Amino acid sequence: MLKAILSLSTDVDFVKSAFDYVDENVDKFVEDLKGLCAQPSISAQGVGIDECARLVKEMLEEAGLLVELRKEHGGNPIVLGELMNPRARKTLLFYNHYDVQPPDPLDGWLHPPFEPKVQDGKLYARGAADNKGNIIARLKAVETLLKTIGEVPVNVKFVIEGEEEVGSLTLPDFVKTNKERLRADLCIWETGYIDEKGRPNVYLGAKGILYVELTVKDPSSDLHSSYGVIVDNPAWRLVKALGSLRAPDGKVLIEGFYEHVEKLSEDDLALLEMIELDEESLKRRLGIRSLLGGLTGLEAKAAYYLGPAVNICGLVAGYIGPGSKTILPSKASAKLDFRLVLKQSPDDILSKLRRHLDKLGFSDVEIVYLNGYPAGRTPIAHPFVKLVTETAAEVYGAETVVCPSIAGSGPVYLFTEALGIPTISTGCNYYDSKVHAPNENIRVKDFITGIKHIALLLSKFASSYG
Amino acid sequence: MLKAILSLSTDVDFVKSAFDYVDENVDKFVEDLKGLCAQPSISAQGVGIDECARLVKEMLEEAGLLVELRKEHGGNPIVLGELMNPRARKTLLFYNHYDVQPPDPLDGWLHPPFEPKVQDGKLYARGAADNKGNIIARLKAVETLLKTIGEVPVNVKFVIEGEEEVGSLTLPDFVKTNKERLRADLCIWETGYIDEKGRPNVYLGAKGILYVELTVKDPSSDLHSSYGVIVDNPAWRLVKALGSLRAPDGKVLIEGFYEHVEKLSEDDLALLEMIELDEESLKRRLGIRSLLGGLTGLEAKAAYYLGPAVNICGLVAGYIGPGSKTILPSKASAKLDFRLVLKQSPDDILSKLRRHLDKLGFSDVEIVYLNGYPAGRTPIAHPFVKLVTETAAEVYGAETVVCPSIAGSGPVYLFTEALGIPTISTGCNYYDSKVHAPNENIRVKDFITGIKHIALLLSKFASSYG
Repeated sequence: MLKAILSLSTDVDFVKSAFDYVDENVDKFVEDLKGLCAQPSISAQGVGIDECARLVKEMLEEAGLLVELRKEHGGNPIVLGELMNPRARKTLLFYNHYDVQPPDPLDGWLHPPFEPKVQDGKLYARGAADNKGNIIARLKAVETLLKTIGEVPVNVKFVIEGEEEVGSLTLPDFVKTNKERLRADLCIWETGYIDEKGRPNVYLGAKGILYVELTVKDPSSDLHSSYGVIVDNPAWRLVKALGSLRAPDGKVLIEGFYEHVEKLSEDDLALLEMIELDEESLKRRLGIRSLLGGLTGLEAKAAYYLGPAVNICGLVAGYIGPGSKTILPSKASAKLDFRLVLKQSPDDILSKLRRHLDKLGFSDVEIVYLNGYPAGRTPIAHPFVKLVTETAAEVYGAETVVCPSIAGSGPVYLFTEALGIPTISTGCNYYDSKVHAPNENIRVKDFITGIKHIALLLSKFASSYG
Repeated sequence: MLKAILSLSTDVDFVKSAFDYVDENVDKFVEDLKGLCAQPSISAQGVGIDECARLVKEMLEEAGLLVELRKEHGGNPIVLGELMNPRARKTLLFYNHYDVQPPDPLDGWLHPPFEPKVQDGKLYARGAADNKGNIIARLKAVETLLKTIGEVPVNVKFVIEGEEEVGSLTLPDFVKTNKERLRADLCIWETGYIDEKGRPNVYLGAKGILYVELTVKDPSSDLHSSYGVIVDNPAWRLVKALGSLRAPDGKVLIEGFYEHVEKLSEDDLALLEMIELDEESLKRRLGIRSLLGGLTGLEAKAAYYLGPAVNICGLVAGYIGPGSKTILPSKASAKLDFRLVLKQSPDDILSKLRRHLDKLGFSDVEIVYLNGYPAGRTPIAHPFVKLVTETAAEVYGAETVVCPSIAGSGPVYLFTEALGIPTISTGCNYYDSKVHAPNENIRVKDFITGIKHIALLLSKFASSYG
């Protein structure tokens, strides 16, 4: 067994037996994933959170890990799993989340979002891609190693939180108070994508976020809309306030919004050059005529992977049912997310937003802060980047694309900054996984390859340098 | 009996016996009103319409009228009731509507909206004021005359439609094809209000309306909001388009919107001078600090009764549930009503809106026309104005205020223009009836006085000139 561990990375027999084990258990692995997806866990609405946390705990325990459910300040349970190997010289930490986005609009789904179904080689369910498919893939990789060579050659830690989709509210405190427990040499972040050319895309960081709700109130109750001639309407006020935040080309008009945004480095530009963004295919898939502000080429890639923005996630006022109702609503509100890049701080942007609104006469627009955290990134030069990209290329049979950051957000900064752990995101979603949207799905073949990737990564990590 | 009819207007005994009959039947009349309010009839949602039309028909028949349910082009049934008196020299036509506004937001109600309840002398229910209280008051006035003097001294016609709250879509055709049946000397429109000083307010017309829904679409499905950096968001497009329609002071910015709006006449100004708009009380009641654009005095009254406007009735895009969801919505829409004054045509304003949006680069904003009709008014000099105001003053025991128009809209133009019938609106709502809003209500004392008013009006109308 000692031999197996020491020479794992070059042991062709081992790789074959592990991969065979995965191939023999496809049906079982898919069933386990369906089981996890069938458990709703909508953090925004507090639906099924505790049940899902317990289910994840049981699944980790069944795989042989020691597991604790931890709560910080009344937040959702964080599942902390550990599989320590006294002979291991390295520790790998997996970051994932078991919570999912709300499934609405429900009428957009081919199948009910919490009744997972495989069709045409794809597993459809809310959470299938974001992020339960990756949780199960990693867990099955651990199981595969235990079943084939009897142990995992590195220490493995899982941090699986339940608040990612609502801004990881209590994770910062958890990380701060558990620095020792979370010590690791490498953190593998929640996911990665297979692009349209079949190439695995890995990510060296994630953007930050600021999520706020803007509300305008008064009159004290809905009025007959004939009052609209002499009584102001909160929906008009909100519309005007929102209109002041962003130019039609997407530029954020809040004074100082770009103050701390740094110019792209040579390394960043080099990475972006290597990434292919198939604009025509993207436009076709999304049903749009052109990208925002006519972006194209390097500019489009720079914006997508490394640019900040403000987005309206939701907007509501007055009567939204069928037909006509003539009222002057008493309240109007909008949910906004700001995607932040390195050096932009959510607190700073929040103050600037307040100042912007006040300056333009919108002091009556209330801002409720819902969540926020800064961006985090790992340098391309870090030696573990090679480990992740090479193992991905090996199993997916295609060149790995390295992206400087996820286009989305994640509390990567907690690991890169607070814990000082290089953090790389890789996983088994694909370009049409419809994350956060109806018909979220994962391809079964990617899920299976994803298990193999993590198994290979764990093995090679044991003997890698970094 | 002949004597009674001919000298009715001065017959103190008659008035006393009729009013006594009303006072003796308060409980029964309130029960009948509750019965009608308990029947939902939400035209915007197609809820309970046929049931309510049948109920109104039965109530009219029970009172002794000949009743037909008429449908035009698949619209909601129009209840046409007639009580013809071969000896009568005049005909009075009542216009009312049995449909109501949607009751939402439901959590704003003290009592369920379709479970009528009397509390502190007020009857709470959706439709209690708008417009079922007035239907029943008029019907009970007819019943009172039949029970006390044995007949009504004028021909009475009721037109009670079921589409007023959705723009009276099929009423124009009904009116056009039934000109003879609808012939009358005077039309009493749906309602009037008792103001804070206890004075009945009657109205000589109503504004027109144009109701549209604006929609912006694409991408083809909701996206993860990280795409917001490179993909335009229909909610941003909608917000910008809406923002271009109206200045913060309420002025409509669509080119040519005011083109056909005439300056107020001397008569209009004289009427407005007589109306008291208690701005402080209004602001207190509505929970607002000032009127739109700092309007006050005559300007505020002119805007309220005779000014056009555009209003956002509803606004929706993306995620509107609790907490945060990070999506880029695939669709955003707004419901708008334009209140129109004499000479403004809905078709013309619709074209101008389309041109405005196209000119500013918002050709992607779809406009769906939901309904519309022009304004209609009766001149203050018409002799029947005096009849209505004097009888109102007599029963309510306070000076009558004559308003040139309802602040809201109604298809008055069909009667004033197409049929050439002077049309005056009077009824038993009051200043805090919360029409179109939660806790819609009518004061029982006003309802009872309203019955007496119509009984007196019918009697005096028989011998009036005009």
